[in-house]
Amino acid sequence: MSNEKIVPMEKDFAKWYTSVIENAKLVTYSSIKGMMIYRPNGWAIWSNIQNELDRRYKEIGVSNVQLPLFIKYSDFTKEAEHIEGFAPEVFLVTKKGSEDLTEQYVIRPTSEVLFCNYFKSIVNSYRDLPVKVNQWCSVFRAEKNTKPFLRTSEFFWSELHTIHAYEKEAQDHAFMCIKILKDFVENFLCIPTLMGEKTEGERFAGADTTYTIETIMKDGQALQAGTSHYLGQNFSKAYDIKFTNKENKLENVYQTSVGLSTRIIGAIIMSHADNDGLVLPFGVAPIQVALLPISFDKNPKVLSVVNDLYESLKNKYRIYVDDSNNSFGFKVSKQETNGTPICIVVGPKDLDNNKATIIVRNSLEKTLVDIDEIPTYISNAVDKYQSDLFNNAKKRMDKSIVEVNSYDELIKTVNQKKVALAPWAGTPEDEKDLKQKSGGITPRCIKSVAENKTCFFTKKPAKYMVYFGRAY
Amino acid sequence: MSNEKIVPMEKDFAKWYTSVIENAKLVTYSSIKGMMIYRPNGWAIWSNIQNELDRRYKEIGVSNVQLPLFIKYSDFTKEAEHIEGFAPEVFLVTKKGSEDLTEQYVIRPTSEVLFCNYFKSIVNSYRDLPVKVNQWCSVFRAEKNTKPFLRTSEFFWSELHTIHAYEKEAQDHAFMCIKILKDFVENFLCIPTLMGEKTEGERFAGADTTYTIETIMKDGQALQAGTSHYLGQNFSKAYDIKFTNKENKLENVYQTSVGLSTRIIGAIIMSHADNDGLVLPFGVAPIQVALLPISFDKNPKVLSVVNDLYESLKNKYRIYVDDSNNSFGFKVSKQETNGTPICIVVGPKDLDNNKATIIVRNSLEKTLVDIDEIPTYISNAVDKYQSDLFNNAKKRMDKSIVEVNSYDELIKTVNQKKVALAPWAGTPEDEKDLKQKSGGITPRCIKSVAENKTCFFTKKPAKYMVYFGRAY
Repeated sequence: MSNEKIVPMEKDFAKWYTSVIENAKLVTYSSIKGMMIYRPNGWAIWSNIQNELDRRYKEIGVSNVQLPLFIKYSDFTKEAEHIEGFAPEVFLVTKKGSEDLTEQYVIRPTSEVLFCNYFKSIVNSYRDLPVKVNQWCSVFRAEKNTKPFLRTSEFFWSELHTIHAYEKEAQDHAFMCIKILKDFVENFLCIPTLMGEKTEGERFAGADTTYTIETIMKDGQALQAGTSHYLGQNFSKAYDIKFTNKENKLENVYQTSVGLSTRIIGAIIMSHADNDGLVLPFGVAPIQVALLPISFDKNPKVLSVVNDLYESLKNKYRIYVDDSNNSFGFKVSKQETNGTPICIVVGPKDLDNNKATIIVRNSLEKTLVDIDEIPTYISNAVDKYQSDLFNNAKKRMDKSIVEVNSYDELIKTVNQKKVALAPWAGTPEDEKDLKQKSGGITPRCIKSVAENKTCFFTKKPAKYMVYFGRAY
Repeated sequence: MSNEKIVPMEKDFAKWYTSVIENAKLVTYSSIKGMMIYRPNGWAIWSNIQNELDRRYKEIGVSNVQLPLFIKYSDFTKEAEHIEGFAPEVFLVTKKGSEDLTEQYVIRPTSEVLFCNYFKSIVNSYRDLPVKVNQWCSVFRAEKNTKPFLRTSEFFWSELHTIHAYEKEAQDHAFMCIKILKDFVENFLCIPTLMGEKTEGERFAGADTTYTIETIMKDGQALQAGTSHYLGQNFSKAYDIKFTNKENKLENVYQTSVGLSTRIIGAIIMSHADNDGLVLPFGVAPIQVALLPISFDKNPKVLSVVNDLYESLKNKYRIYVDDSNNSFGFKVSKQETNGTPICIVVGPKDLDNNKATIIVRNSLEKTLVDIDEIPTYISNAVDKYQSDLFNNAKKRMDKSIVEVNSYDELIKTVNQKKVALAPWAGTPEDEKDLKQKSGGITPRCIKSVAENKTCFFTKKPAKYMVYFGRAY
């Protein structure tokens, strides 16, 4: 019973992706190019991601703040490398009503500048440090070619910024945060990751070190799922954020920033969804368990059993009862399209044996379960569902990584929709050359130090083993 | 032990207000005029408001969506009355990078236009109706004179929009929503309200009916705490939102919108705070119960009792332990300034009698309580705290309302920092005249139909009894 509205991914991966999104009613397009409307199903997924990541951040002492949307143009241009990275794509506010503004405002493409001004206003002494603050907001970058979740001119994210009195503490914090993101993405979203440092050319504008978690989609392309930056004193010098240290001397703070955005919803789709529609990790699903009474006009017991099940499950799961008059096929297909992890189908026939049918979204496996055993069955099914999602994605990822030693092998590997692991000694200039020559292949992250290897591109002694691929 | 940093409200109410905010570290100013930085204490209050109102909205079947920040200028200008209300104060985006945009974007001052475009794209038949969607976001209106929470160029809010197939259903929904807001503000925020319809001149631009809940601050000024609008078909005609009705004919939908913003934090402060600092309703307090161990170097039992109390209370309340080396006075004063409802002070002396001191923020009353009885004591103290906050504010409000029949009485009443209830038969033009003549007095809302009264301003037979005052 495959879904005719979903374009098969083998036929056209890009169209499959958008048809999954459209049929699950996640987003719709607004009249402004590149800006999406999040429909209830789409925004609920992001809200569930927010709640869980927020909870994890609070465990390490992070508080939420909210900074303005606008940045004064003169503030924006203080950190040279940073402005260079963003200037061409920022939106500018130049008027209020019919009146010209005396100074233009940049609509935040990221909030480093705003956090810096905030930090400067609240920090005096080492006793005020560290400060760990996060913001949930949207940021704006004019994009030409847009794709839901992956590349949009407005996107939502979490930006966690910290300042520290000690270099080592800040460096450790940046590394701890990428591990938090890795754990979140792997265990909550069931998406396996490659974790490592970015090469110099892929580093965040203004960072000393950028850590990343890279994920590999069903079409073999990479997607950066989250980053953590050690910013050193680059911003604190440009924005003059100083504190009195233990030796009673003025010093610039050491900074980090960490980001995870709505792109992760794209990664969820391209890691788990199939030709029947969306498949959602249990924790993010707007509806976790759907109760589907069928033919209930034939037996009044159907609705009363559904009601009992609803009462016994509602405090543990986000649950939904579809008591419409639609057919069995329609009801099941709707939940499949939306990615609901578990359906419980209650009908007169099964009920004669005191049973109901449980359908699990990833395998579409159907199991007849005694009504009384359903709560326990579901509790176990959830654990299995989560580990199946992760393990299937992990097997796929592991198979798609191929170690190569030459440019030709690298091209061949990536063209086979895989990710290449290759020895590297290039400069940012070499990264640009490789990208141009290969038509878009980039280093995704450093796996490890290379030992006795030759760089496949520069032929110099390799420094690192690096993952290469095409990326979203 | 009053707080020297807080300007007494009797001396200068405006300075008292800002000193309460500054000392509780709620917000700080950004480098952009009229835009605030929400610090952790400030944003936590708004987050707690969001969570509770969101929960109540979900109970009536509302889902959250997220719409873009930008509105095409040509879309914005479709509803004439609406644009007239907002045009002078909107911010305009005219450039991306160094490039001029072909069409300017309005940064949303409110999202009616965006909701209308969304509704138009998803609704076909009466079977798709009603649709009830809410958005948490910030909106932008260039303000000249700004004041934290009360008037800022960026503010945060909830905008709940619904569309219906039937006029009556939409009207009833608009009225139900103002009652939900009233209950929320009175029972969760402990602020008594006056609920009623707005006069024509105070109505939302584009609404047929505007319901409001008005609150009265400690300085006798009114503050509009929330509004619910019945929009009729004004927007659905301008934005062409049609559906096929049961008679198989095309019809425009009937709309409502409901709003509650961060201004409500201003209302919380000016309803409950005092000369010692902030006083927060229990549900919104970032810290609900503070555990303050003192002189714990003298008796190791202090910290172990604090730890036991923490364990027994942490699942029920947002709790914080101040185990710094600061003095008793410093610790208590900090919590008072921040508005923490309940402090438990644990020190060696009281502990010898197996007791601790509980201080409740509103009355600053201190009670010695047996350690074992603390959880029960607090549970009761919370209920009393909430009802005391509400009852005190209610007594104050009731006393501040005076019925008047002439213009002179009205002026005298309002100048005595009160709210006047007066018979009215004016037009929007009369409202403007009154406002100008009186130096800012406006009708806040209609209380009831007037019987055999003469309008104090126009001398015509009065239609309504209306509350008048100065408003934030």
